[in-house]
Amino acid sequence: MFKIITRISLLTVGLLSWFIMPAAAETTVSAEVGFIFNTFLFLVCGFLVMFMAAGFAMLESGMVTSKSVSVICAKNIGLFSIAGIMFWMFGYNVAYGIPEGGYIGKFIPWSDNSKISTGYADGSDWYFQMVFCATTVSIVSGTLAERIKLWPFFLFAAILTGFLYPFVMGWQWGGGWLAAAGFNDFAGSTLVHSTGGAAALAGAILLGPRLGRFTKSGTPSPVKPFAASSIPLVTIGVFILWLGWFGFNGGSQLAMGTGNDAIAVSKIFINTNLAACGGVIAAAIVTRLNFGKTDVIQMLNGAIGGLVAVTAEPLMPSPLAAILIGAVGGIIVVYGTKFLFAMKVDDVVGAVPAHLFAGIWGTLAVPITNSGANFGSQLLGVIAINGTVFVISLIVWAIMKNTMGIRLSKEAEMKGTDVTETGVIAYAIRD
Amino acid sequence: MFKIITRISLLTVGLLSWFIMPAAAETTVSAEVGFIFNTFLFLVCGFLVMFMAAGFAMLESGMVTSKSVSVICAKNIGLFSIAGIMFWMFGYNVAYGIPEGGYIGKFIPWSDNSKISTGYADGSDWYFQMVFCATTVSIVSGTLAERIKLWPFFLFAAILTGFLYPFVMGWQWGGGWLAAAGFNDFAGSTLVHSTGGAAALAGAILLGPRLGRFTKSGTPSPVKPFAASSIPLVTIGVFILWLGWFGFNGGSQLAMGTGNDAIAVSKIFINTNLAACGGVIAAAIVTRLNFGKTDVIQMLNGAIGGLVAVTAEPLMPSPLAAILIGAVGGIIVVYGTKFLFAMKVDDVVGAVPAHLFAGIWGTLAVPITNSGANFGSQLLGVIAINGTVFVISLIVWAIMKNTMGIRLSKEAEMKGTDVTETGVIAYAIRD
Amino acid sequence: MFKIITRISLLTVGLLSWFIMPAAAETTVSAEVGFIFNTFLFLVCGFLVMFMAAGFAMLESGMVTSKSVSVICAKNIGLFSIAGIMFWMFGYNVAYGIPEGGYIGKFIPWSDNSKISTGYADGSDWYFQMVFCATTVSIVSGTLAERIKLWPFFLFAAILTGFLYPFVMGWQWGGGWLAAAGFNDFAGSTLVHSTGGAAALAGAILLGPRLGRFTKSGTPSPVKPFAASSIPLVTIGVFILWLGWFGFNGGSQLAMGTGNDAIAVSKIFINTNLAACGGVIAAAIVTRLNFGKTDVIQMLNGAIGGLVAVTAEPLMPSPLAAILIGAVGGIIVVYGTKFLFAMKVDDVVGAVPAHLFAGIWGTLAVPITNSGANFGSQLLGVIAINGTVFVISLIVWAIMKNTMGIRLSKEAEMKGTDVTETGVIAYAIRD
Repeated sequence: MFKIITRISLLTVGLLSWFIMPAAAETTVSAEVGFIFNTFLFLVCGFLVMFMAAGFAMLESGMVTSKSVSVICAKNIGLFSIAGIMFWMFGYNVAYGIPEGGYIGKFIPWSDNSKISTGYADGSDWYFQMVFCATTVSIVSGTLAERIKLWPFFLFAAILTGFLYPFVMGWQWGGGWLAAAGFNDFAGSTLVHSTGGAAALAGAILLGPRLGRFTKSGTPSPVKPFAASSIPLVTIGVFILWLGWFGFNGGSQLAMGTGNDAIAVSKIFINTNLAACGGVIAAAIVTRLNFGKTDVIQMLNGAIGGLVAVTAEPLMPSPLAAILIGAVGGIIVVYGTKFLFAMKVDDVVGAVPAHLFAGIWGTLAVPITNSGANFGSQLLGVIAINGTVFVISLIVWAIMKNTMGIRLSKEAEMKGTDVTETGVIAYAIRD
Repeated sequence: MFKIITRISLLTVGLLSWFIMPAAAETTVSAEVGFIFNTFLFLVCGFLVMFMAAGFAMLESGMVTSKSVSVICAKNIGLFSIAGIMFWMFGYNVAYGIPEGGYIGKFIPWSDNSKISTGYADGSDWYFQMVFCATTVSIVSGTLAERIKLWPFFLFAAILTGFLYPFVMGWQWGGGWLAAAGFNDFAGSTLVHSTGGAAALAGAILLGPRLGRFTKSGTPSPVKPFAASSIPLVTIGVFILWLGWFGFNGGSQLAMGTGNDAIAVSKIFINTNLAACGGVIAAAIVTRLNFGKTDVIQMLNGAIGGLVAVTAEPLMPSPLAAILIGAVGGIIVVYGTKFLFAMKVDDVVGAVPAHLFAGIWGTLAVPITNSGANFGSQLLGVIAINGTVFVISLIVWAIMKNTMGIRLSKEAEMKGTDVTETGVIAYAIRD
Repeated sequence: MFKIITRISLLTVGLLSWFIMPAAAETTVSAEVGFIFNTFLFLVCGFLVMFMAAGFAMLESGMVTSKSVSVICAKNIGLFSIAGIMFWMFGYNVAYGIPEGGYIGKFIPWSDNSKISTGYADGSDWYFQMVFCATTVSIVSGTLAERIKLWPFFLFAAILTGFLYPFVMGWQWGGGWLAAAGFNDFAGSTLVHSTGGAAALAGAILLGPRLGRFTKSGTPSPVKPFAASSIPLVTIGVFILWLGWFGFNGGSQLAMGTGNDAIAVSKIFINTNLAACGGVIAAAIVTRLNFGKTDVIQMLNGAIGGLVAVTAEPLMPSPLAAILIGAVGGIIVVYGTKFLFAMKVDDVVGAVPAHLFAGIWGTLAVPITNSGANFGSQLLGVIAINGTVFVISLIVWAIMKNTMGIRLSKEAEMKGTDVTETGVIAYAIRD
């Protein structure tokens, strides 16, 4: 059935993509003014993406049970810090120090190499790329919540942000072999979101589900005792992510120094927004029709699914195409969540459906609206990136599991990670 | 007494508006650079206004009782999604496809028509207008919380954002008959805020109050059992709205491509801020003096009242005038809330006083600081917009009430909307 | 031991500061375009700093016990309002109306004096400076929570934002005697953060600790009954502050109208981020090694400590130097908190270690990376500003204590400030 929905959606999207880009204007902007505009774009979009770290922190805080909230906060502030340092120390040049068409870059720290002739301040680009890197590991933290040890998680975060994400990302954005193979991923449906999702999935498999999560023949109780600690925190988290995504996709135009760039960034803002809208509405309708109630959590995750789906190509789709791409993303979240339940994989926040599954969809859908892309290259990229990230993550998690250990003791998990790992209870609310 | 306060304030504001705009400079900015600046302004101010959706979601989540929080989250993420789609599909051209001096535009989807000669990317303008549209329905959701059915609310949201708001908004910003009549509403005290408030008021009247809200001779208990679920969520909501308002009013300058525009946007930021300050301080003083305690909820709503009040004319007032316009807005919130209590209208979050009443005040106050405005045209606009929106909303709500029904069953309301509508409890906090 | 850590850090930072600024480019930006860029920078960075008010509100709401949350919200919305009005009415010209090399400015309201030749819209500068002013008093509110009376706090907020902060700030940024003496404080480690911290410390000493906080021989129970009401609110607060700090430090470049300015702002974003990263990681490691558990609260405050530390000089440090400066800031927060405990000073949110102590460190560390600064002038500035603010604050608090009283009655404090001061309980969460 899923395949049919996909095909119908692809067809519909294709038929309806008739809106075209406005005609281009010749630029009359001086090099330095363009330089400032481009830098400004990176900085503004960069701080929007940086704020997504807060969005993930809130989404995850709200989705875990109330005995694991302080630790998820510690993970989120910690991973963002680790990402910043590792991406400076190794990540940037592992990705961008790659030879043309090559496989891996250099293990040296980034340093500022700004020239007016490069078109933007080098540091603004580093900043923008760094917050992307942090997003990848933000995706991982939620899936593995409530039973992973804190410091092994931090170690994995360092590996992912310093080496693994930059390694595969460089294949495309660093001008490596995948770019040469004709792969298209505008803002990172696969490079960022699926990478995070695949690393999370590998971890979730090796880590196993939370105690008591799947005791009864694959039908987990969604309410108690695994109830989300705070729906408004999930909600503000999703709104912050939605906000940040304008920076994520808009900034990926990489330029604001010509009228045409300004037009493109505007189009990207619109498509990004409409895809999220489509994801929310689709999840609302699907859960209402199929499960009787309008599931707020799936609506919220549906926004993420829609956003991830449009991220591979936020510029070329017509508004209607963007809505439909997002809607399919939202539907994928709903059924992907059910699928993981059936597989007894415990993804605490639903990051795998939203980031991995919807990311695959969005990446494969690029050729529908972008005639410069082809399905074969898209498939190649999806398999290469996800396969590599999944396998390496599995190996890394396995090594860690068999050395330092990655899972809390039963006693610790029963007490809750907040008590055992950080010693700070999350909500001390008294009458 | 209210009239006297108003008059004194009008007089004081008038007497004190002696600060004037600095002298203009001739522009030396090329068309394309101006185009990029204008587009950038729309995008940056647009994402600030987009974030107001999160602000409303948090304000409302915090203000409702804890058994209706998940559903208010669902409503807020849903309405923003509906607004995005409807404003693309119908709204934009209903408003801006209007003939000059006319009454209604065209029911066709928006499409990108960017040209350097138009001065900004068409898409950036659409984005900016779309988030305004979403604001209108954000205002409605809070007032009707805890007893309205979810999907009828979504239907109303679609009608308001696709047709009703664009219809009346086009009269002014689309260049329709009201603009021709000399009405002034810089950023939408009436067009956006009063529209939302009037639609909410119509709904609240037809829907009736929550069960048990007004049983005892018009003196509702403000604390239990209708206590706000979380004051810090209300607080972050208001701060987000305050932040977003810089985009709301600043972006309504519609240009940043000349030095004079930059000066104007800066002035607008300052006046917007000072009006909010005035609203907060006024509400604090009034509640402390009249009710014995400094009511934090009224201070927070006072900020909104001040912001709404200055929105009709955030450019021309002197700083002092802005403070006073905002202060009157804050006072209107306090007494407007009391007035609705007395009328036994159950406005769960106080949106009607803050958006409708303060919006009327702000719109009527425009001639005090803007010599190009006149009281008659302002009154005409206030009556035309609010009357139209109120009556049409009342009709729409009435039709819905008598067909699908808009109110939850008694049993459902007692259990709480979270259990019956979305099946997700909002706060699962355990020791 | 603290001294040794500091020395080693200073040495390490010094040795590793080898990254240099890229070569300068000559500007080809017209005066008006530069004017718009500069104004845009002030407005964008200004709204980021404005949002820090929400960050402080959330950090403080989360850190106080659940019976004082509504009042801390009232304080935060109130103080931001007071700051806006007072800085307009007096503060700006007290600081910037100062004669060159002088001691105090003029007690007159700010008015807009924009000219293209000044390089930016005067109003955008006022806005940017105003949100800095508000930050100062935001720092104070947390330290004094749970036992100070609301309106005396507001009175102090008015004095601090209208007179005391502008007075000492003018010595440096207004071109007063301290600037003439060669002091360097790029974005306000001392001028803003230590000022807030010193005023808070003076208040905390005069006010005394919360009832029962230090009954048992200097070993306060960190968990009950003084447990933080909500860790996720603290977390979003810190992420918002981190976000806002890009505006705080980046905007303090005061210009974006040349390629070199754009490069500088980018460098500042990076260093600001890396210092926060260093602070978080250092606090995590130190608490894990020394106290057995990874303290999430210290990680979060470690971010603040790192940010405050780099604020005095966010442009010149290499990335590695920024990390180390921030790391020392994070360590200072951890041990500074222990030190205040030992001194029986009750700083509810840890603002004194994060803003005063880390601010002193950051200011004294400037000469390590900025060859234009010297240790003697830095020490002079630290002593002059902190000494003046501490002494005047002590006097103001003492006068208020002996006239209107600043501390709640025992009964009121036991009941909680929310019940007695605002009459609104913060969390009304029912099953």
